[in-house]
Amino acid sequence: MRMALLGATGYGGIETLRILQGRTDVEQLIVGSDRYAAQAIEQVLPQFRGSSIGQVQFTKMATLDDFPMVDVALLAMPHGEAPKYVDRLLDRGIRVIDFSGDYRLPYDTYELWYQAPERAHYVPGVYGLPELYRDHIRNAELIANPGCYATAAELACIPLMEQQVIDPSRMIIDAKSGVSGAGRSPKLDSHFVEVDGSFRAYKVGQHQHTPEIERILQDAMVRGSTNLENALATHDHSSVRVLLTTQLLPIKRGIYLTAYAQLTGTMTTEEVTHMYKKRYETEPFIKVLQPGYMPEIRHVVGTNECHIGIHVDDRTQTVMIVATIDNLVKGAAGQALQNANLMLGIKETTGLEQTAWC
Amino acid sequence: MRMALLGATGYGGIETLRILQGRTDVEQLIVGSDRYAAQAIEQVLPQFRGSSIGQVQFTKMATLDDFPMVDVALLAMPHGEAPKYVDRLLDRGIRVIDFSGDYRLPYDTYELWYQAPERAHYVPGVYGLPELYRDHIRNAELIANPGCYATAAELACIPLMEQQVIDPSRMIIDAKSGVSGAGRSPKLDSHFVEVDGSFRAYKVGQHQHTPEIERILQDAMVRGSTNLENALATHDHSSVRVLLTTQLLPIKRGIYLTAYAQLTGTMTTEEVTHMYKKRYETEPFIKVLQPGYMPEIRHVVGTNECHIGIHVDDRTQTVMIVATIDNLVKGAAGQALQNANLMLGIKETTGLEQTAWC
Amino acid sequence: MRMALLGATGYGGIETLRILQGRTDVEQLIVGSDRYAAQAIEQVLPQFRGSSIGQVQFTKMATLDDFPMVDVALLAMPHGEAPKYVDRLLDRGIRVIDFSGDYRLPYDTYELWYQAPERAHYVPGVYGLPELYRDHIRNAELIANPGCYATAAELACIPLMEQQVIDPSRMIIDAKSGVSGAGRSPKLDSHFVEVDGSFRAYKVGQHQHTPEIERILQDAMVRGSTNLENALATHDHSSVRVLLTTQLLPIKRGIYLTAYAQLTGTMTTEEVTHMYKKRYETEPFIKVLQPGYMPEIRHVVGTNECHIGIHVDDRTQTVMIVATIDNLVKGAAGQALQNANLMLGIKETTGLEQTAWC
Amino acid sequence: MRMALLGATGYGGIETLRILQGRTDVEQLIVGSDRYAAQAIEQVLPQFRGSSIGQVQFTKMATLDDFPMVDVALLAMPHGEAPKYVDRLLDRGIRVIDFSGDYRLPYDTYELWYQAPERAHYVPGVYGLPELYRDHIRNAELIANPGCYATAAELACIPLMEQQVIDPSRMIIDAKSGVSGAGRSPKLDSHFVEVDGSFRAYKVGQHQHTPEIERILQDAMVRGSTNLENALATHDHSSVRVLLTTQLLPIKRGIYLTAYAQLTGTMTTEEVTHMYKKRYETEPFIKVLQPGYMPEIRHVVGTNECHIGIHVDDRTQTVMIVATIDNLVKGAAGQALQNANLMLGIKETTGLEQTAWC
Repeated sequence: MRMALLGATGYGGIETLRILQGRTDVEQLIVGSDRYAAQAIEQVLPQFRGSSIGQVQFTKMATLDDFPMVDVALLAMPHGEAPKYVDRLLDRGIRVIDFSGDYRLPYDTYELWYQAPERAHYVPGVYGLPELYRDHIRNAELIANPGCYATAAELACIPLMEQQVIDPSRMIIDAKSGVSGAGRSPKLDSHFVEVDGSFRAYKVGQHQHTPEIERILQDAMVRGSTNLENALATHDHSSVRVLLTTQLLPIKRGIYLTAYAQLTGTMTTEEVTHMYKKRYETEPFIKVLQPGYMPEIRHVVGTNECHIGIHVDDRTQTVMIVATIDNLVKGAAGQALQNANLMLGIKETTGLEQTAWC
Repeated sequence: MRMALLGATGYGGIETLRILQGRTDVEQLIVGSDRYAAQAIEQVLPQFRGSSIGQVQFTKMATLDDFPMVDVALLAMPHGEAPKYVDRLLDRGIRVIDFSGDYRLPYDTYELWYQAPERAHYVPGVYGLPELYRDHIRNAELIANPGCYATAAELACIPLMEQQVIDPSRMIIDAKSGVSGAGRSPKLDSHFVEVDGSFRAYKVGQHQHTPEIERILQDAMVRGSTNLENALATHDHSSVRVLLTTQLLPIKRGIYLTAYAQLTGTMTTEEVTHMYKKRYETEPFIKVLQPGYMPEIRHVVGTNECHIGIHVDDRTQTVMIVATIDNLVKGAAGQALQNANLMLGIKETTGLEQTAWC
Repeated sequence: MRMALLGATGYGGIETLRILQGRTDVEQLIVGSDRYAAQAIEQVLPQFRGSSIGQVQFTKMATLDDFPMVDVALLAMPHGEAPKYVDRLLDRGIRVIDFSGDYRLPYDTYELWYQAPERAHYVPGVYGLPELYRDHIRNAELIANPGCYATAAELACIPLMEQQVIDPSRMIIDAKSGVSGAGRSPKLDSHFVEVDGSFRAYKVGQHQHTPEIERILQDAMVRGSTNLENALATHDHSSVRVLLTTQLLPIKRGIYLTAYAQLTGTMTTEEVTHMYKKRYETEPFIKVLQPGYMPEIRHVVGTNECHIGIHVDDRTQTVMIVATIDNLVKGAAGQALQNANLMLGIKETTGLEQTAWC
Repeated sequence: MRMALLGATGYGGIETLRILQGRTDVEQLIVGSDRYAAQAIEQVLPQFRGSSIGQVQFTKMATLDDFPMVDVALLAMPHGEAPKYVDRLLDRGIRVIDFSGDYRLPYDTYELWYQAPERAHYVPGVYGLPELYRDHIRNAELIANPGCYATAAELACIPLMEQQVIDPSRMIIDAKSGVSGAGRSPKLDSHFVEVDGSFRAYKVGQHQHTPEIERILQDAMVRGSTNLENALATHDHSSVRVLLTTQLLPIKRGIYLTAYAQLTGTMTTEEVTHMYKKRYETEPFIKVLQPGYMPEIRHVVGTNECHIGIHVDDRTQTVMIVATIDNLVKGAAGQALQNANLMLGIKETTGLEQTAWC
């Protein structure tokens, strides 16, 4: 595997390097950074002291056209940066996986939720959620790697949508994330003293992952329909409506996401669990828990796994699905490398089999 | 004020002592503990080194009948312990505030949710939520101090119930609490290594505060009705249905509780905020935030306050109310002392005016 | 008491406001901030929502000469800022307590350790450590409030110096502080993700509190001498030598400082403890622990106390003194207000009697 | 590799399983636990859900003699348990690596520091610190795996001892550890609420790793001597004296240990660094930092590495060495597996090459 990583000193980029350090099949690794150009990675990121990755030098982004050829480039940069590089990479025949939201949404939705009126009319890339789009991913030139909250929300709800057992018009998603999800650039909001011992919501009703989740769940609902014509007719683009509450946990990493939805018929916890186990039985990273168990963030931290817990509350006819992921792994770097494996014909789980620490 | 505190070495009891240490009007303080009898408080709880409270000696509980007379006794003991003491105290003419769930529910509900078949048929005490029952509290002999989650849930929802603007049959309450809420006796579940860096739900759909919340919200709905006859007829005892999700935050103290309910008509965030501000305008400890703001746990830790944030999501017709309290203060010791102030004719806010630490 | 607080939105300033909120004798409070001028404190610092302090508006610093007259001004600003204001305040007859290092050291030492060659030749103020300079403080016009590490180090070592029982030329001070000690302006070093779950030293051998500690301990040694002439002759200015290691704890507040020194004679833990208890017996905020006990940060957080634990290791002839304080209270705001009480003839402990939270 | 792990549900055992899960060369794995006999590992430790290790069933310890044959047994049990099993294992020809302190010390020292008068007269095993005893380890039947604090202390000081550049009679070691070092059984001392936001020393002057450190450093001093006869004559068994301060950090894992010692001659930071780099240049897990840098716990968490930072303070003639390790990896499970690799002729770093998380 020959790979370029642009934007390596944010948390998504650092995590990519950590996972790559554990692999033996990386023949070529280009790591782009204007700020640290010509320094060795171990000088900037001491956790790589003495390791092979640590000896790699950062390369100036401006020299992008002079890179040795690579198979795939991962773009781990803030929203709005990727479009400066994507065309040049694709033109060189380099396939691209973008971590940002830039290629996940149609133009009008993007403009509305990302408050980015100046953006050009980009065509969305293939959405990089293997559990829903594995075959498209294998052949994609440009992958839009899913958002961290979106990954958890979609994995939590896809079986409900495909089987059409809930009212999709009023789903409530109460999500909690570790601080690394807010990025590495210093802000008062991520200052230790302001975060530790506390908990708070942010961007209430306005989080930019809302339309991403609605778009993919809508698609899952249509795809799941046995009568596709009918499904397309009944469910217009606006039939899935999600209230997404995003909240900051005083932990470094991990997402704990709870979806609440109203069942249209009567189902037990056991029946919903059976439905989920069947849907995900061949998925290497999805673990559906037995009735009576709920996941915990610590059991997925550092891994590419998603643990799913299910509870049906018959007093309120509500189904509650909990999904936990590591926002930097399955929610970013791990999923990107899972996609890279698929694109390059490598075994999908390669390099992604770490166990969580106690 | 002359006071007895039975069960002083759990977190609720310790917090009561902390608040009392700041008061100058405590003439008599009896602190009961069989385990530490005859030791000074400062020997057991080093934070009281050298303070006046620290010099008080623990008294054996068995000698309860020999206590000097006090005005009120606070019982900060585990569920099931209070009934061993309550009658003896009442017989001596000592008014009682019980921190546990023992006197909050009618017998049948208690038996069901507390899994306590052996319990005798206790009559519930006056429910110690001043914002709803202030006048009853003033004259009560026995107060059932509200549960910590229940306090936050009820303060979050009372105006919605009184004004009958939501569908009460399917309310979702997603609540998060610090670890002190789980008590001070060592368990693997509260071991630092098992809690830090993680987050998890527990007792899903089975938390014993569920019937307490439903009972009080039902009562608020009836009381709020302008046509009481009609209200009682329409809303039978089972009309309020809450799905309560309780979750453990890796912090020491604080509750962050989010209630989601479906509006029966159209209301804006501003209208709901106005309704809340009006309802709580004379309440000394309730702060209703302006539209666009949400509370944070750190701003109420160590205080008797409840901060309330409001958001109406018009895409899903959902009203979202966030309430934050300190589970040990407004959720336990502070509320108990607020009730004691009311019972003894002392200014309600006495001793309860600390500001949160940054 | 009439008071001005300049620089109110750093952690030292916020803590000053928190303590003041609990007092009833503040007749006049001016709170200076250029950035937030004309906003109410509660808009900027939500923990003051609805409180009396919260309603105070920030005043522009430029209007310093138009302030209503106050008795004392507290300057809680970064190093180097105070000199812009001190002369104007003193000229108006306002006494000053400065939180920074600007007035703690003679010019040459300051220049060397603060790397501030441009600084004018300020005369040091009276050093605001009541346990050593109480009488000077009462009459001072300008107080240099001690550094947080310095406060803990000096309280830990003063009795050793006064009694001259150790070799002063090679003292080792291993100190650990919470993150609020590093200030509130966002830096990668105080980012939650970089701090949580870790521990590290910084400014090894170069911390600017080193000369402050050496100067005060030198003075304590001279003052403690029964034969003052002799003491001055024997101990030149350079006889106290401290290796200060400063380290960052993943907590919000609190300092835990351990001093190791070689005993010149044989002493037991009991003897050293007796010496400390005698030295500090009339000090309201110093608690010397019994042999066999060691202090914990949590027992002093939020308080103006200093807890001191003592151990003599006879295998190495080393005496080990542990001191714990809250860096924002006894290490900053609390000590400043203790000094203000002394200056204004108010009871020294007024407003400073809070108990630590569990 | 065929391996047995007895005592798998403490933190040392769980960590051993985590590391083993990443290996592909484990042919046979016996996991002993009386409490969980016949349950699958994934039922007890949810982080192993769906993994190959997770499917292994716990085996009763009583059936020890019926185990399929293994090459090596790891004993990860509390102090005092190992002797119940060691002879039976050795008799079957199974080599043993014991995590506890039972085989690290001569009988008299053990009895004194472990307060274990009933202990039989065990002969110490080979001390499992590869950086000092690699050749002995390869052929050992019974390995005493070093204590966590001891590992860090010894790696920090071995070069100083071998080169005899310090006064060994008064070394100060100020060590800080995460809570997992205190074990997994619930105690008030490891309750989240008692640990979070605090810091404290424990077992001051009495920690049982003291004699272990002194014994090994004494041995390093003798071995390092160019004139061995002379060294043995000059340095009697009691010449190394360590004051060890052990302290609890509010983090899950990691040790940060600082050794202070007096230089007998004049050396610079650069010279000491050169000495360390030379001593450890072929060691795969020891990273000696450049002058001016100090290690951080987070850069070694989850890894088998030891990072060493060096500072010479010429004002006090003190050399200060900081060593960081993960107490569960290099301080327990990782070092045990490093020893197992050596004993079985496997490449020493196999399975131990993970990078720390950000």
